[in-house]
Amino acid sequence: MTLWGGCFDKAPDNLLRQFGDSLPFDWRLYEADIAGSCAYAAALHRAELIPLAERDELLSGLRRVEEEFRSGQFSPTSTDEDIHTAVERRLGELVGPVAGKLHTGRSRNDQVSTDLRLYLLGKLAVLEKGLVGLQTALVDKAEEHLDAVMPGYTHLQQAQPVLFSHWLLSFYWKLERDRERLVGVRHRTATLPLGSGALAGCPFPLDRHVLASELGFQTVSQNSIDAVSDRDFCIEFLAWAAQVQLHLSSLAEDVVLWATREFGFLRLDDAYSTGSSLMPQKKNPDVFELVRGKSARMIAHLTSALVMVKGLPSGYNKDLQEDKEPLFDAVDTLELELPLVSQVIASMTVNADRMLVAMDPGMLATDLADYLVGRGVPFREAHHLVGRAVKRAAELGVSVSQLAPAELESIHPALGSNALQSLSFRASVERRSIEGGTATSSVRAQIEQARRRLSQA
Amino acid sequence: MTLWGGCFDKAPDNLLRQFGDSLPFDWRLYEADIAGSCAYAAALHRAELIPLAERDELLSGLRRVEEEFRSGQFSPTSTDEDIHTAVERRLGELVGPVAGKLHTGRSRNDQVSTDLRLYLLGKLAVLEKGLVGLQTALVDKAEEHLDAVMPGYTHLQQAQPVLFSHWLLSFYWKLERDRERLVGVRHRTATLPLGSGALAGCPFPLDRHVLASELGFQTVSQNSIDAVSDRDFCIEFLAWAAQVQLHLSSLAEDVVLWATREFGFLRLDDAYSTGSSLMPQKKNPDVFELVRGKSARMIAHLTSALVMVKGLPSGYNKDLQEDKEPLFDAVDTLELELPLVSQVIASMTVNADRMLVAMDPGMLATDLADYLVGRGVPFREAHHLVGRAVKRAAELGVSVSQLAPAELESIHPALGSNALQSLSFRASVERRSIEGGTATSSVRAQIEQARRRLSQA
Amino acid sequence: MTLWGGCFDKAPDNLLRQFGDSLPFDWRLYEADIAGSCAYAAALHRAELIPLAERDELLSGLRRVEEEFRSGQFSPTSTDEDIHTAVERRLGELVGPVAGKLHTGRSRNDQVSTDLRLYLLGKLAVLEKGLVGLQTALVDKAEEHLDAVMPGYTHLQQAQPVLFSHWLLSFYWKLERDRERLVGVRHRTATLPLGSGALAGCPFPLDRHVLASELGFQTVSQNSIDAVSDRDFCIEFLAWAAQVQLHLSSLAEDVVLWATREFGFLRLDDAYSTGSSLMPQKKNPDVFELVRGKSARMIAHLTSALVMVKGLPSGYNKDLQEDKEPLFDAVDTLELELPLVSQVIASMTVNADRMLVAMDPGMLATDLADYLVGRGVPFREAHHLVGRAVKRAAELGVSVSQLAPAELESIHPALGSNALQSLSFRASVERRSIEGGTATSSVRAQIEQARRRLSQA
Amino acid sequence: MTLWGGCFDKAPDNLLRQFGDSLPFDWRLYEADIAGSCAYAAALHRAELIPLAERDELLSGLRRVEEEFRSGQFSPTSTDEDIHTAVERRLGELVGPVAGKLHTGRSRNDQVSTDLRLYLLGKLAVLEKGLVGLQTALVDKAEEHLDAVMPGYTHLQQAQPVLFSHWLLSFYWKLERDRERLVGVRHRTATLPLGSGALAGCPFPLDRHVLASELGFQTVSQNSIDAVSDRDFCIEFLAWAAQVQLHLSSLAEDVVLWATREFGFLRLDDAYSTGSSLMPQKKNPDVFELVRGKSARMIAHLTSALVMVKGLPSGYNKDLQEDKEPLFDAVDTLELELPLVSQVIASMTVNADRMLVAMDPGMLATDLADYLVGRGVPFREAHHLVGRAVKRAAELGVSVSQLAPAELESIHPALGSNALQSLSFRASVERRSIEGGTATSSVRAQIEQARRRLSQA
Repeated sequence: MTLWGGCFDKAPDNLLRQFGDSLPFDWRLYEADIAGSCAYAAALHRAELIPLAERDELLSGLRRVEEEFRSGQFSPTSTDEDIHTAVERRLGELVGPVAGKLHTGRSRNDQVSTDLRLYLLGKLAVLEKGLVGLQTALVDKAEEHLDAVMPGYTHLQQAQPVLFSHWLLSFYWKLERDRERLVGVRHRTATLPLGSGALAGCPFPLDRHVLASELGFQTVSQNSIDAVSDRDFCIEFLAWAAQVQLHLSSLAEDVVLWATREFGFLRLDDAYSTGSSLMPQKKNPDVFELVRGKSARMIAHLTSALVMVKGLPSGYNKDLQEDKEPLFDAVDTLELELPLVSQVIASMTVNADRMLVAMDPGMLATDLADYLVGRGVPFREAHHLVGRAVKRAAELGVSVSQLAPAELESIHPALGSNALQSLSFRASVERRSIEGGTATSSVRAQIEQARRRLSQA
Repeated sequence: MTLWGGCFDKAPDNLLRQFGDSLPFDWRLYEADIAGSCAYAAALHRAELIPLAERDELLSGLRRVEEEFRSGQFSPTSTDEDIHTAVERRLGELVGPVAGKLHTGRSRNDQVSTDLRLYLLGKLAVLEKGLVGLQTALVDKAEEHLDAVMPGYTHLQQAQPVLFSHWLLSFYWKLERDRERLVGVRHRTATLPLGSGALAGCPFPLDRHVLASELGFQTVSQNSIDAVSDRDFCIEFLAWAAQVQLHLSSLAEDVVLWATREFGFLRLDDAYSTGSSLMPQKKNPDVFELVRGKSARMIAHLTSALVMVKGLPSGYNKDLQEDKEPLFDAVDTLELELPLVSQVIASMTVNADRMLVAMDPGMLATDLADYLVGRGVPFREAHHLVGRAVKRAAELGVSVSQLAPAELESIHPALGSNALQSLSFRASVERRSIEGGTATSSVRAQIEQARRRLSQA
Repeated sequence: MTLWGGCFDKAPDNLLRQFGDSLPFDWRLYEADIAGSCAYAAALHRAELIPLAERDELLSGLRRVEEEFRSGQFSPTSTDEDIHTAVERRLGELVGPVAGKLHTGRSRNDQVSTDLRLYLLGKLAVLEKGLVGLQTALVDKAEEHLDAVMPGYTHLQQAQPVLFSHWLLSFYWKLERDRERLVGVRHRTATLPLGSGALAGCPFPLDRHVLASELGFQTVSQNSIDAVSDRDFCIEFLAWAAQVQLHLSSLAEDVVLWATREFGFLRLDDAYSTGSSLMPQKKNPDVFELVRGKSARMIAHLTSALVMVKGLPSGYNKDLQEDKEPLFDAVDTLELELPLVSQVIASMTVNADRMLVAMDPGMLATDLADYLVGRGVPFREAHHLVGRAVKRAAELGVSVSQLAPAELESIHPALGSNALQSLSFRASVERRSIEGGTATSSVRAQIEQARRRLSQA
Repeated sequence: MTLWGGCFDKAPDNLLRQFGDSLPFDWRLYEADIAGSCAYAAALHRAELIPLAERDELLSGLRRVEEEFRSGQFSPTSTDEDIHTAVERRLGELVGPVAGKLHTGRSRNDQVSTDLRLYLLGKLAVLEKGLVGLQTALVDKAEEHLDAVMPGYTHLQQAQPVLFSHWLLSFYWKLERDRERLVGVRHRTATLPLGSGALAGCPFPLDRHVLASELGFQTVSQNSIDAVSDRDFCIEFLAWAAQVQLHLSSLAEDVVLWATREFGFLRLDDAYSTGSSLMPQKKNPDVFELVRGKSARMIAHLTSALVMVKGLPSGYNKDLQEDKEPLFDAVDTLELELPLVSQVIASMTVNADRMLVAMDPGMLATDLADYLVGRGVPFREAHHLVGRAVKRAAELGVSVSQLAPAELESIHPALGSNALQSLSFRASVERRSIEGGTATSSVRAQIEQARRRLSQA
């Protein structure tokens, strides 16, 4: 029997059930739903709506239902529209009519929002750990390879030499922002809607702050109409998840590129590579292609949540049921992906020699211009002069450092052999010792700071 | 064992398998995969790559694998990365080493695209039937209620009277465009990629046109690099599906609104309504809220497919595996939804009396202006004059038709009692007998045309 | 001349310029660009890279350029690729070769990110004021209409009576979350990238913390590779803007609906309504339709920013130029919209009588069930009993309160006349005095809390 | 004066005008609007609603307004809400009260849809030419470089050798699908809504088919409610544009990659490269980065149009005004981009020597497995054997072709020196002479077919 059939002539049509029932995906809220109901039963007792004995009957019944779910023994029936109905139905079978008191003053509208928030709060803790794990893998790797110098790219063209570790740490900082943003997401998720009823508020004198604190919420919602339909926390979480995913995707893009034969900077461990059904020689970085590819679904999940609320009148509307699948999938994806990426990063081989061989001396052109700046040439002019030297070298098929001294001096007197002697990839790197720069000292400072932050996580 | 482990040191890590294996969702391609392999075995034989006996072994083995899938007896193993691997592995167990010949010249890259296209072609036929079913329900309902006049809305404000049937048929035409668009989607899906190998083309002289025609494709792809990575047909299908969904959503929006107490034009059958866990009196149009809500996921699926291909280098990339879940979900959603919506439309109650009561006489203002046009007043001036009459009536708290004749004539001499006598909701409707207009004759013409088109479907 | 032509054989093609130049839209960064350059000139001086006199020449030149922009006298030339080039070019014309020193150690990569952040920080303050203005309008209106009781809706069906003010305040709280989120957006926007150079860090010993504090940033970026390509702050702002817009859109949806003839709860002032070119009687709520419609562009802007970064290698890529148009449009839209919506809300007419007339006695069914709960009936059973009463009433074409006492008592003995006498819309509202509920006391408490928060804004 | 102020107390508020007026962007519909009005004037005359003289006055007035727009002499006033209002207002100033007759039976609802379709039909022709131009550039380049063999990639790992021309042509075929899809887009755009009035149909006996044919439409809409709100053609166009853009983006991605120092296969002409403000040596492929980046806005425009219609009730709603900016921007982007990309492709330098040097002998592994297949080894076994050879070679740090004969024969007797002698990149390419394969003959066949199709464009 449905929860609500009293005033209906007919049972719901079968197609309608298939279309509308959410148990196939919201069963995973069972722990949150039961935790919420336990707290609610206690609140009903505190408000003197049920005696102690009934509260205890409800609690022990709920624990048994939970155990059935956990052990895989729970059997759904055709009237279990959703996890809330399923739990209430089973509770009734186990404890009898007292089960019918549990929904006093509560609506599925405030219940489902409470459950989803509770579920998400638990998962946010898991995902935070995943971020810390990946950040740690990046910092470890960065510390291990502090000696590797590589081409730094802009527009995918070699730009200036950088430390490989500096590149690795650039992802540490992206993820650090994600951890920072997580604080806000968690804070706004941890607002308890329970006690809002269907939309007008619960008519019984429950203490919502006690409820909140028992369930681990930070505060209670302040307006029942808002509370039952607010899905901002889903949207905010999905926006957060999309940003995390794009950070992973950016890492993936670089690795896929650098693992090509043409770049050759990195090699994935065989345990994290895959082969081809046709071509015997292939070793493919599928894992990072999928990480990149999954940015599509994460952006789409966010789109879905945003579009879902667009055009809705206020108050609860059934459309909101569509919040769950994107949210669950985003959680699952990140929960699996973060440790996986950590392992792949930790196990990949870095080929510092290939990096060195790949470096274009042209990357020192800025340093040469800076050298002229040191001799009083305004930077913009120095830039043009060095540009002319680069062009001249290209015409002769050589690098700037191979130009004849006379050739160089004809461009500017200060461009003598001293100028060239001061240039090297390592020197270029070490000159950038400003905060956030690529010099070894700056990178070490980043590592220290990262370790400090991670140790507080 | 994987299909490709020959040159690897280690087996794939477990997390990688969980992250990358697609069997959990692509198993549903089994029929398409086996059909494709049967046709491929025949092609290998025709190209004299395998003898007749081996072809027949392969065919009968494949049929047994299919039967195992169909009957639910297929047991996946941990190395079954995807449906293609699973089928090939099981075939090998059943028929021995000859199974190893099936992949001659074929890659999973051309195989998976072939399978997905084949699967989709089958589903397009089902969805087309679903569209025809819904169109028929709309036309039937329109024919049944030809006498119902209702307010027509723009900006959700009453604008001009229309036939309820005209409104119903407006959805017929939206879906008609969907059916038209389907032709193009089907045409471009029905291009066979098989024979493209991994990306360079199959090195054996298969007759791809025979393959195409055996599998029901209309033509063969013309460039192997394009063929293995082209997902245009997925994108195009998902764009199509999103448009269909938005049409259903638009219908849903109107019905949700018109089923309110305030409008009261329609009532859903109890079998297609749902109740509240808290409020005993509620009957909610969940079905149409979900239809509206599901436009979010359909837009998101399209977004997902578009974003997936963004930024990819050409040739096959693993990211493309992400094409399947959105496509499958879009198919499932529409496959369930189209017959469901048809039934809800067919079973809903139309309250023509409420429509009549709801109508604002102000909706005849345009007719009054047109009356002045008939008396030589330029329309723009007529519009202003009637606007003034409307304002005057509002000041007096009456409708224009209740204004004193003197009052009206003071605005324009032609606005005498004749003007008002010519006005009625029914007359207003019937004056719009232009092609596509709301007059009964025009609506009947639409119904006839619709019947003719549907009979050819 | 371009900034960078030294090593090039040819000038850029004209089509390329049209396609790539950003001055047509990034001119609006001029204030931020010049502020950034002034601070940079000061930093160059502090680092002893330029003498005081040159710093002052640069500063006064930059002020003159700014004045030309502000007064509309700035003339772009065909080589002004972007605002940075334009300012530097004009500065050179005004102050001569010393202008060429301004770019020492700076790249457009760190410059543009600095400019965009600075611009956004300024606009965030404006938008925050806009939010406060709208919140104030909502609270004022709520206080003014505390006596209006209206139907509360779920699934757009009448559910339970609520105060109109409670509905108004539900939007206050949505916007309050937006203000809260703004803190995080601002915090992460206020990280200074300047000093990161092209990607490797500035090779000169600038004090980035002084730079940050002069420009109003809270901190400095910690990794130059990350800093030049990080667009998280744009994405986060656009996600924020989309959420704000969806809140406005939700308000709009309700108002559009309630301004219909059928609902009739609200009427927009003529100054905020629009008419029809054809239909003289029409008054349309265009403003709120546009607010709703603009949620499309705001969601799309966010999509755009997310997709932009998808698939990019790390370091600066030109794709990032595409961040600006969505960001500017989102700012413009909200900057105009927030005060406009405030005015429309403040000026609209509330029709409390129509609300009262519209109310369905069925909305008291939950209260009746609660009454039974008070008499010891478990809620679930009470729900079914009242459901049966509702059904019986519907069969007889009356409301539950019109059922004969015998009829009611036959359903449950406690359903006597006392039960019905206790029921009223007002009583239903006032019973929900829980925190966040719709009772007058709870709504007053919300108003007080809102006033307190707004007074601190 | 507005078109519709008759029944209003107040003029529209200034902020409302800024927010709602569309002239700032829809002015570009002026040609379409005036063409539509000219045809409409003729239709009014044919229906005997205006005499010949008035028709001619209207026509000559409209021509003058058009001339003012074209020459930049048109002066908008503060009441010009949109292009339709502006034209009608100016027409009135030029020809007097007869201008007021032009809107007889017409609404801005059917007018704006007609205008937008007319505008789009014109632009579709331009874009089709752009596609043909780019396809021609690709085919020309392919024909020119038929001798260049390059690595073919999957997963960005070298997979099998292919002709560079085969790669170029892969984009020809993507664009060919775009041209094919354009036929459907055009067909559905070319349905005339004019005559639908505000939503109920025009009450005057216009011959809509004559109107359609005068304006170049293929047919007329069949339901006025549908016609005034149908934006399917916008969505379909934007979906089309997004697919085109993603094809260009895919080309861009490859070129950006292949123009790196590490790949080095291609070099952009200086006229289509850009430099760095800081680094004198840089030559960046900005043009293709922007092409890739603009896929973000094109996906977003589609999202915007889809979200715009989501949740709308049927009939015209003001939200629909938001259709224009995305559509205009998509048109502008492609209109500029297609010829630009054509020129960049035509002018880029192909470095066939670098391609050759880059090729990994491992790419012949499949050919070696195929060789074993020719000796009776089932393909799957051959794949594993060659995989083992690849692994053995890697252990020894050589390529498979450098393995000692004994080593190879120990893996399989048939893997003798004959096997290796048959292997070469060129031979591998030429074996793939199947339809759509990479062999020179197949590529020539593609070129021929492409030329034939282009000559019919």
